Amino acid sequence: MVDAVQNPPHRVVIVGGGFGGLYTAKSLSNAAVDVTLIDKRNFHLFQPLLYQIATGNLSPADISSPLRSILSKSKNTKVVLGEVSNIDPEGQKVMMGEVLVPYDTLIVATGAKHSYFGKDDWEEFAPGLKTVEDAIEMRRRIFMAFEAAEKETDPEKRRAWLTFVVVGGGPTGVELAGAIAELAYHTMKEDFRNIDTKETQVLLLEGLDRILPPFAPDLSQEAAASLTKLGVSVQTKTLVTNIEGDIVTLKQGDDFREIAAKTVLWAAGVKASPLGKAIAEATGAECDRAGRVIVEPDLSVKGYSNVFVIGDLANFSHQNGKPLPGVAPVAIQQGEYIAELIKQRIKGRTVKTFNYVDRGSLAIIGHNYAVVDLGFIKLTGFIAWLAWLFVHIYFLIEFNNKLIVMIQWAWNYFTRNRGARLITGKGALQEVIEESNEYYKPTENREVIKV
Amino acid sequence: MVDAVQNPPHRVVIVGGGFGGLYTAKSLSNAAVDVTLIDKRNFHLFQPLLYQIATGNLSPADISSPLRSILSKSKNTKVVLGEVSNIDPEGQKVMMGEVLVPYDTLIVATGAKHSYFGKDDWEEFAPGLKTVEDAIEMRRRIFMAFEAAEKETDPEKRRAWLTFVVVGGGPTGVELAGAIAELAYHTMKEDFRNIDTKETQVLLLEGLDRILPPFAPDLSQEAAASLTKLGVSVQTKTLVTNIEGDIVTLKQGDDFREIAAKTVLWAAGVKASPLGKAIAEATGAECDRAGRVIVEPDLSVKGYSNVFVIGDLANFSHQNGKPLPGVAPVAIQQGEYIAELIKQRIKGRTVKTFNYVDRGSLAIIGHNYAVVDLGFIKLTGFIAWLAWLFVHIYFLIEFNNKLIVMIQWAWNYFTRNRGARLITGKGALQEVIEESNEYYKPTENREVIKV
Repeated sequence: MVDAVQNPPHRVVIVGGGFGGLYTAKSLSNAAVDVTLIDKRNFHLFQPLLYQIATGNLSPADISSPLRSILSKSKNTKVVLGEVSNIDPEGQKVMMGEVLVPYDTLIVATGAKHSYFGKDDWEEFAPGLKTVEDAIEMRRRIFMAFEAAEKETDPEKRRAWLTFVVVGGGPTGVELAGAIAELAYHTMKEDFRNIDTKETQVLLLEGLDRILPPFAPDLSQEAAASLTKLGVSVQTKTLVTNIEGDIVTLKQGDDFREIAAKTVLWAAGVKASPLGKAIAEATGAECDRAGRVIVEPDLSVKGYSNVFVIGDLANFSHQNGKPLPGVAPVAIQQGEYIAELIKQRIKGRTVKTFNYVDRGSLAIIGHNYAVVDLGFIKLTGFIAWLAWLFVHIYFLIEFNNKLIVMIQWAWNYFTRNRGARLITGKGALQEVIEESNEYYKPTENREVIKV
Repeated sequence: MVDAVQNPPHRVVIVGGGFGGLYTAKSLSNAAVDVTLIDKRNFHLFQPLLYQIATGNLSPADISSPLRSILSKSKNTKVVLGEVSNIDPEGQKVMMGEVLVPYDTLIVATGAKHSYFGKDDWEEFAPGLKTVEDAIEMRRRIFMAFEAAEKETDPEKRRAWLTFVVVGGGPTGVELAGAIAELAYHTMKEDFRNIDTKETQVLLLEGLDRILPPFAPDLSQEAAASLTKLGVSVQTKTLVTNIEGDIVTLKQGDDFREIAAKTVLWAAGVKASPLGKAIAEATGAECDRAGRVIVEPDLSVKGYSNVFVIGDLANFSHQNGKPLPGVAPVAIQQGEYIAELIKQRIKGRTVKTFNYVDRGSLAIIGHNYAVVDLGFIKLTGFIAWLAWLFVHIYFLIEFNNKLIVMIQWAWNYFTRNRGARLITGKGALQEVIEESNEYYKPTENREVIKV
């Protein structure tokens, strides 16, 4: 039995400031423990809205909050900017570069990044969407493609610039494809002089027989119909077999097909952060094929009751044999569970094993249209869109006073204005301009008239 | 005499989408001319608010508008993304890479960038503020400095991290220094655990005997007093003689002094875009020492009545012998003048020479405090701050529906919230983390307590 108030207090180290790590820290803010949150970024990112940066609707700061500012009132919590490379479970320390940070309880929640199923050379041609920098790069490519099409005089090349391929029919892929179609068919339809943006082709590719596999089949169908109406060509049972330069090779049944597309966006697979493998090696725990650490019913790592792995980095399969999906609600509930577990342990009590309560899935398709699957009820269309909006506003506000930002965002949404469609990025800029200069050929070569 | 409606229409080429180029294009939107606006960026940047990005108050998209979207209703106007390297005044063409774009009338408005008076090696240590990328880099350095100070255990090094030197006491320097002081003394005062952000030192250095030289002397004095109250150390008659690593060498009278500062921000000098020199060489016109093209009373280049240079790139000295300052109102009025001149010329008429109407100067010092010099009236304090706010809202709204953004901005301002204080940037990230890992030394090394 340990005293409720210890001196020195129990040291909790949390690695990662995503949903899992942040909710652990927030839930421990009134506990008699000493919390250190380590992240390599100084901000929490609201990842579910990242596609809105990529498509020029929001700015990074709109969906990010400085970790220090979220936790400034948690006087027991210290935020440290750093990257953890490994852990020492025997010595109870995490390794941050050359520095060792001691812990009594450790929570690792460093998430996942996109994965190309071993085809890492595809990344150059088909960027993924996990970080702010990824989103800015996607935004640059999307808007640069329209600029290049405007300058291109060769009809075939112009068509390749106006062809957008989104690989992966999960929520991110669906949201990206819908947003690009809206940009082309609505937002930017008056902005160009040489091209008609309505000639844009948006292809959404999915390997399974329907998009949005986590949803009920009839919702997947409705979503596909709605995307088609928006102008997206939804292609299911379609595998990408190669991406090279601006050619995407598809396999549909036994047929192979090549598509010329200058912009290919990757929303297909994820793999766990490399820290997962390091933890497995250090503790003797097992990883699954995606690199996630297989955790015990209380989210601890086998053999180490004071080391926990949560969120996208964890494979928790104790509920129905299948690992829980890598979504924010899982990470949030796990973070809150761990915080409660630590509080109870300090009092010498135990808690029940972790149990995920699935409150449903939401995905936005386009302007005023979403699909929501709450299990007991299914919603589509405008009412689902309102539900989607409400949930996202609710969670964004929790981090900061983002009400104003959400008003702005709703405003942009209703007016279909996308003010954030900037082409930026220091390194890439000169290249873009040079590339861009090349395409331009004045369409008319009239006589010069002196005034 | 030329017909009012020509076939083909008169071709106006505008190089640069800043205030000068954009107002020329906007003012020509109802004219019977064919307008091509060439810019190397796809957006117009509201430069007077750039310091608010650097200090984490606004996002780039808040003060930028896509050029295409501003000009989408101007059906006679084509926006081209590209960089002009030179002009051929005889052949009436501008050179964009390998491509020649013909014109009947040419307006060049490519502005200026910051200059180190020949000490280009200072740039590495003391970045300037002219582009979105510059502002993101400044933001990274400012917020990274606080993160590094939080981790640093050596008191001397910690002090260098908490010392910010702003070189140049013009409006940008004053605004930067005031904003950093506010961050340290108000916004972030509860965010750190190891450092007290109130130990931050902000130095504002000015070579002349007072800051804000364009203003009346008593306003300069009031501004300096107000900055001092905010926590800024204002040092006039101070020259920077060297910047190397984290040491800034100052000369005050005959004394030399060294200051250890990890963050040095440059707001001192500008030089014209290199296109100025190219135009001078191609036309035989003269440039001043800052590289600005000396223009005729109608803003044309000597010997070429259909080539105009406006904004920060022009040296117009026909009013009181001194060149007009490089500020937005000058560029805007020049753009509007040129548009009117072109419209009248097409009708065979002439216009009077350009005359700049100075409506006054504004500078913001900090929260609720600004100075405004309208000539006939001088304002300071809250009322000046409201005037400053009104003028900036008015001009921002002209470009886009930025009302919501301005509400957000005012909200941030009133609540002293700075949600955009993100450390981002793909290239620099790894370096930052490695650097950051090094500083960290856990302050306590207590016994490990098992739970």
